[in-house]
Amino acid sequence: MDNSFKRYFSDPTVLEILNKYKQIWSLGYAMSLIEWDMETYMPPEGIAERGTANSQLAVLQHKLLLSPDFQELVEKAKGKEGLSDQEKGVIRVLGREVERARKLPERLIAELREVTTKAHEAWVISREKKEAEPFLSYLDKIVALEREMADKLGYEEHPYDALMDYFEEGFTTKKADEMFTAILPTLKKSLEKVMNDETFPRCHYLETFRYEISKAERINRKILETVGFPKSRARLDVSAHPFTINIGLKDVRITTRYEGFDIRRTILSTVHEFGHALYELQIDEALSGTPIGTGVSMGVHESQSRFWENVLGRSRAFSAIIGELLRGEFPELKDYSDGEIYRYVNLVRPSLIRVDADELTYNFHIALRFEIEKRLIAGEVKVSDVPELWNNMMESMLGVRPRNFAEGFLQDIHWSQGSIGYFPSYSLGTVLAAQIGAKMESDMGKLGEIIERRDFGAVREWLREKIHRFGSTYAPRELLKNSLGEDVNPSYFAKYIEEKYSK
Amino acid sequence: MDNSFKRYFSDPTVLEILNKYKQIWSLGYAMSLIEWDMETYMPPEGIAERGTANSQLAVLQHKLLLSPDFQELVEKAKGKEGLSDQEKGVIRVLGREVERARKLPERLIAELREVTTKAHEAWVISREKKEAEPFLSYLDKIVALEREMADKLGYEEHPYDALMDYFEEGFTTKKADEMFTAILPTLKKSLEKVMNDETFPRCHYLETFRYEISKAERINRKILETVGFPKSRARLDVSAHPFTINIGLKDVRITTRYEGFDIRRTILSTVHEFGHALYELQIDEALSGTPIGTGVSMGVHESQSRFWENVLGRSRAFSAIIGELLRGEFPELKDYSDGEIYRYVNLVRPSLIRVDADELTYNFHIALRFEIEKRLIAGEVKVSDVPELWNNMMESMLGVRPRNFAEGFLQDIHWSQGSIGYFPSYSLGTVLAAQIGAKMESDMGKLGEIIERRDFGAVREWLREKIHRFGSTYAPRELLKNSLGEDVNPSYFAKYIEEKYSK
Repeated sequence: MDNSFKRYFSDPTVLEILNKYKQIWSLGYAMSLIEWDMETYMPPEGIAERGTANSQLAVLQHKLLLSPDFQELVEKAKGKEGLSDQEKGVIRVLGREVERARKLPERLIAELREVTTKAHEAWVISREKKEAEPFLSYLDKIVALEREMADKLGYEEHPYDALMDYFEEGFTTKKADEMFTAILPTLKKSLEKVMNDETFPRCHYLETFRYEISKAERINRKILETVGFPKSRARLDVSAHPFTINIGLKDVRITTRYEGFDIRRTILSTVHEFGHALYELQIDEALSGTPIGTGVSMGVHESQSRFWENVLGRSRAFSAIIGELLRGEFPELKDYSDGEIYRYVNLVRPSLIRVDADELTYNFHIALRFEIEKRLIAGEVKVSDVPELWNNMMESMLGVRPRNFAEGFLQDIHWSQGSIGYFPSYSLGTVLAAQIGAKMESDMGKLGEIIERRDFGAVREWLREKIHRFGSTYAPRELLKNSLGEDVNPSYFAKYIEEKYSK
Repeated sequence: MDNSFKRYFSDPTVLEILNKYKQIWSLGYAMSLIEWDMETYMPPEGIAERGTANSQLAVLQHKLLLSPDFQELVEKAKGKEGLSDQEKGVIRVLGREVERARKLPERLIAELREVTTKAHEAWVISREKKEAEPFLSYLDKIVALEREMADKLGYEEHPYDALMDYFEEGFTTKKADEMFTAILPTLKKSLEKVMNDETFPRCHYLETFRYEISKAERINRKILETVGFPKSRARLDVSAHPFTINIGLKDVRITTRYEGFDIRRTILSTVHEFGHALYELQIDEALSGTPIGTGVSMGVHESQSRFWENVLGRSRAFSAIIGELLRGEFPELKDYSDGEIYRYVNLVRPSLIRVDADELTYNFHIALRFEIEKRLIAGEVKVSDVPELWNNMMESMLGVRPRNFAEGFLQDIHWSQGSIGYFPSYSLGTVLAAQIGAKMESDMGKLGEIIERRDFGAVREWLREKIHRFGSTYAPRELLKNSLGEDVNPSYFAKYIEEKYSK
């Protein structure tokens, strides 16, 4: 590690930056652990003190990042020539953070923090009551603040670009529009075909099969062992909503949940989170503690989780792995063939809830949110119109209409947290996952055969070499061009969908 | 909470201090969680990054504490009149911290940190090899640094006072000498008596009884429920060495370990840690996030754990609770009466290892360490003489002689961490526990009867009212005088021992 660190970083200004950055990084480290603990083991009454601690640490981190001498160092390094790629990456990432923090007035940040705290409570109430209010009024305030934010941050073509760029550097409204235009017709066509035959079912007996948690846990652990989850550097725990968090490069944690029925949900969500975790775990360890020692963007991160969950996890060959484990733990399932498991994990059904969606309908859910967010930020629709607009769009896109707002615009937590501009990265990730799969096949041969050989080491190594090891060294658009030969290209996903669902 | 906070804290300078202190507190909060996680759930390879994060956070905390404007505020508040007890407490605690930090040169702190990091590794090796070196050379350096530290900190009578005061404010070498002089003869007498009859056995069949961990865990959880461990604000987990840690006042965590044999060890250690936890849990919540929102000293803390472990946990009445649970989980133990369980949890056997010692021999282990530390710091013995001195003293005190240094001076971790002056608080706590028991009995009647009624709520409430709720508002000597009518008085312990072991 020491040697590669020295090879990457030698400029005295950058070294000074990295040295100062250690405290900023350490605060992030602590906040990550705090977040993980909050979702897993914290005694419930600990929440109030935790809120205080967490916001104080965030304030402290913000202060260090914006301290004049730190900013000055970053500014000084920007003009330098002859920097290594890693050094440039450090300056790019910090430059973005500092610039964002400079552009956004403290007042705006504070207002947004205050509104989202209340909005989250209101969202919980609204969702429970299945009524637009009290949440809708808060959403109105959030959208107003986010529009102001877009103005302050600045943009070239569309104000929504300013918001999206935070989650996916260099991704634009225009590019997202192009992406959806490229994939939705194919998805629609495949969906129509699938709805008219029985290759992929609408529903499956195994959805209602009730399982014992200890057995599902054993299956998840065995699958993680199979795909190569390093126990000495990673953990699997239980939380209400599955997530991945990187405490450090050698301490990455994922969670799952056990609902007691429809066992594919916990299995595929574990494989999904494994994809996220592997990205962090395979970053060059010389980048630990630096601003580039983490995944580069939400979209690229999601490409990793979707690659493992969908491209590998929902493949025929992987169904055989799941099938073997299911039959091993549950003798009552002995008559379910691998082919039947494949149908089970790939059932297709237009539904109202994004997180339950299959490969053919998922991107419609995202396109809907993208359209609404885009228009809200452009001022083309009013927040008060969102509930009905959502339901109408859902009906026209997927032919199903929410019976209440909890099944509609209230279903996701994101808006209550002020996350606008995030959703497109879910589709971006899904599309990239297929692109990565195609590139990998052209390098290493059929993925199905690799999985049959259980040669997940080769898959991990390819991902490490092409994507993971760089962390945030290169901006996402550059990383993809370097490693895949081109930026996101939705045609791979269209082809993947056609081959899987139209044959 | 808001109202009591306002009642306690109203001076504008103190309020400004408390406001600034929030960041210092939040860093402590994060470091506590990091420590807990390190001993419980951290993947092993996470250790290196964790070390970096932890030390950076400590540096940051130190910097905030010593920032000129914070020091100035504390200085300014010192002179104020008409402060509430809580405000005075805040100034006392921060004044001590600031003064200590000022007196100790950074160079000394850095050297000590460096030496103890290496010393810890050396200690692990020495202990494994049962040889004095490599650890002894590091101990030599540690003692030299600690002697320098005592000089810098200053003292009135004995250099060891300066070191002890950090762990137990206002406790002195002279007082510790008096304490041991008061209790050791009684212990010796009782020990001789016990060794000559069979009321308390030397060893017991149940020491070798092997248990299933899940059953022992259930017993621990039931006991914690019985004594009133609030699950919504506290946790029990497993670690290599049992400990208690307060993340916040509403998030206190204890651990235990399951060795698979001698089940009293895990039960009594759980009860011990419960005593520590209860102290933190019952601090007035208006003190949360302030410098006085934690237990006041090591000795008073240990009095709480020892009170629950020994005075209650090793009593006849508590043996009935343990006995019932043991017989419930292990049908093969159905013939063990409560009286037999009492003998089992109170077996007396002069042994070489402090952590395995019983009530009669424990304080000899502490007296030995106290004597050695005192003489080392006074420069009256050389470090190179410690290994033999230890063995000789052990033989003369308890009649047993270590066969190797791992059973002798290498057994405790404390010296490798540079903790010199800490040990006496173990005996102080043990002595105070009996004193608290006596005061409680004079207020509420026989403890045995209270336990029989399982009225642990009354016990908790007494402790809350007299000791816990104040946190560090009053210095330990003052707290004891206020609440017990006198500072530590070893005669209660002597009486407790006589009554229990000489009847």
